[in-house]
Amino acid sequence: MDYQRLLNFCESVFDKMGCSKEHSELAAKVLVTADLRGIDSHGVARLSGYVRLWKANRINPTPNITIVHESPSTAVVDADASLGLVSAPYAMEIAIEKAKKCGTGWVSVRNSNHFGIAGYHAELALKNDMIGMAMTNASPLVAPTFSKERMLGTNPIAVAIPSGVQPPFIGDFATTTAANGKLEILQREGKVAPEGWIQDSTGNSSTNPFELKEGGALLPLGSDREHGSHKGFILGSIVDIFSSVLSGANFGPWAPPFVSFLPLPENPVGKGLGHFFGAMRIDAFRPAEEFKRDMDIWLARFREAIPINPEQPVIIPGDPERNLEEFRSKNNFEINPEVEKDLNILAKDFNLTL
Amino acid sequence: MDYQRLLNFCESVFDKMGCSKEHSELAAKVLVTADLRGIDSHGVARLSGYVRLWKANRINPTPNITIVHESPSTAVVDADASLGLVSAPYAMEIAIEKAKKCGTGWVSVRNSNHFGIAGYHAELALKNDMIGMAMTNASPLVAPTFSKERMLGTNPIAVAIPSGVQPPFIGDFATTTAANGKLEILQREGKVAPEGWIQDSTGNSSTNPFELKEGGALLPLGSDREHGSHKGFILGSIVDIFSSVLSGANFGPWAPPFVSFLPLPENPVGKGLGHFFGAMRIDAFRPAEEFKRDMDIWLARFREAIPINPEQPVIIPGDPERNLEEFRSKNNFEINPEVEKDLNILAKDFNLTL
Repeated sequence: MDYQRLLNFCESVFDKMGCSKEHSELAAKVLVTADLRGIDSHGVARLSGYVRLWKANRINPTPNITIVHESPSTAVVDADASLGLVSAPYAMEIAIEKAKKCGTGWVSVRNSNHFGIAGYHAELALKNDMIGMAMTNASPLVAPTFSKERMLGTNPIAVAIPSGVQPPFIGDFATTTAANGKLEILQREGKVAPEGWIQDSTGNSSTNPFELKEGGALLPLGSDREHGSHKGFILGSIVDIFSSVLSGANFGPWAPPFVSFLPLPENPVGKGLGHFFGAMRIDAFRPAEEFKRDMDIWLARFREAIPINPEQPVIIPGDPERNLEEFRSKNNFEINPEVEKDLNILAKDFNLTL
Repeated sequence: MDYQRLLNFCESVFDKMGCSKEHSELAAKVLVTADLRGIDSHGVARLSGYVRLWKANRINPTPNITIVHESPSTAVVDADASLGLVSAPYAMEIAIEKAKKCGTGWVSVRNSNHFGIAGYHAELALKNDMIGMAMTNASPLVAPTFSKERMLGTNPIAVAIPSGVQPPFIGDFATTTAANGKLEILQREGKVAPEGWIQDSTGNSSTNPFELKEGGALLPLGSDREHGSHKGFILGSIVDIFSSVLSGANFGPWAPPFVSFLPLPENPVGKGLGHFFGAMRIDAFRPAEEFKRDMDIWLARFREAIPINPEQPVIIPGDPERNLEEFRSKNNFEINPEVEKDLNILAKDFNLTL
């Protein structure tokens, strides 16, 4: 598969859903960027899921995305049930505009849907010499420390930090020990999961990658109390609260599931899913050139931290994804056969060519 | 020991160091709050360490703390080598004032010293119906994933979130699997550490709680790559960059050590230690009463998440420390005999009564 072909196909699908040309292009770009970076679970593998949500009337292809409240450095955005792939870059641009005027901008979004990879949105700040942040809540699959109930999503956090001659620092991670996509890979390969990733429905440790289908749960970063899972629980909670309590979206176990076959939770406490974005203009703190010079020192020094094994140097956050993106944007790459089958079904349904 | 006696003693020690009455009171209050909450490693156990830093001319008891750069929502503060116990609340109040005017306030501090417990500072925002955040870098004791070199501090993050009738959410955690204080407890009790907390100087897993004295390192939250230690490394890095690259303090392995017998790193890249504070006014996003009502729902729902063991319910971040603080502020409590011995030496040195 090559990038352009995948991008064009996604655009056509969003177009068939009734999205504007601008929205289709944007949504396709955000989605396929995940595949380019090797975060395959968040890319075209989810396209049919978005289509099913649209068919279930849970995605509005022609949203009227509006600012419902704002201050000089903040805003709350109602995404009008849009694709998160569209509302997220929109909200991030508001954060950036506010940061231009008063140093920082912070935007909480309600009534949205899944927004693809958090890193894409955080990175939008870099071109303005700003630090960017993005987070979102998601379908409840994670049990708090000491609980067997699924209360939180994998609630990712992304932070993008500009640099000078070194490539930028891009952290983008689920606040669980392992993201759901990692389990999907194990399922496909017929392997078991390491201890500390999941528990079964009674709260016992499990290595069965299909455990979530039987009522099990993902574990917060840290795995268990002795190894700091209460810290992963705090992180996931902060993402949930900033994204959804601050905006008026559904929080905790009320977050709407991504899979359309699961019913929406009863008695919703808000509207749709929530996201949170931030932009901090570097020169609202110190001259951008000085900061970028120091970030270059930081990045070079950490890159050279003495490795345990000389063949495995320290990895700077963002490097592996950047390298893969560069390769995949120029070369054919494989997509999972199951995902390709899924795309072919979509092509047929929509009378398109993959 | 009782709270008031401990507080008075600390005040007197800071007074003898030459701090103003206002600074002595503030520093003592921040320090002893750690003991009240059971975070004994960050309380009076550190008092003699602060005195040694002062004797080594690394703490300025009469600092001229100034804003060196600002925008409507941001500031950089030079702490003039003050106690972090003093500069941190000062910087947090600037963040709060900025949030009153333009929705949020973000302050990065350079040229500071250790600031006690992060939670104390984050909580200052609550009385203004704001979310508060505090973080700091610290003495390098933590190895990045795949490295055997100590490059980061335990770099804590605290987030305080207001609520209505429920007590507030107070997350306050080191971005390592275990904080250094946990090792000190094991050392005193003659116990070994669990696997996943520390590694030896060659990068092999270790259970020896004295390993740091032999060149070993604490591990980032997640413990190892398979369990997400790269995420703990990202978190610790973000704290380091926000606190020290954004302010112009010493970052990464250049962070000055807390213990005065270790030399300062050569060729410093900035001034002193760095901190980062944030305040977000709730009603810059939505009416505070609505938010607090929803936070009450959030807190009640998570408190009631189905426990694995009915005798161990889910712990809401902040609850254990709050309960202990309430008890210890009214009742005598034990302090570690070694720490008490240390305080008695200080009393003698300064001609004070403990």
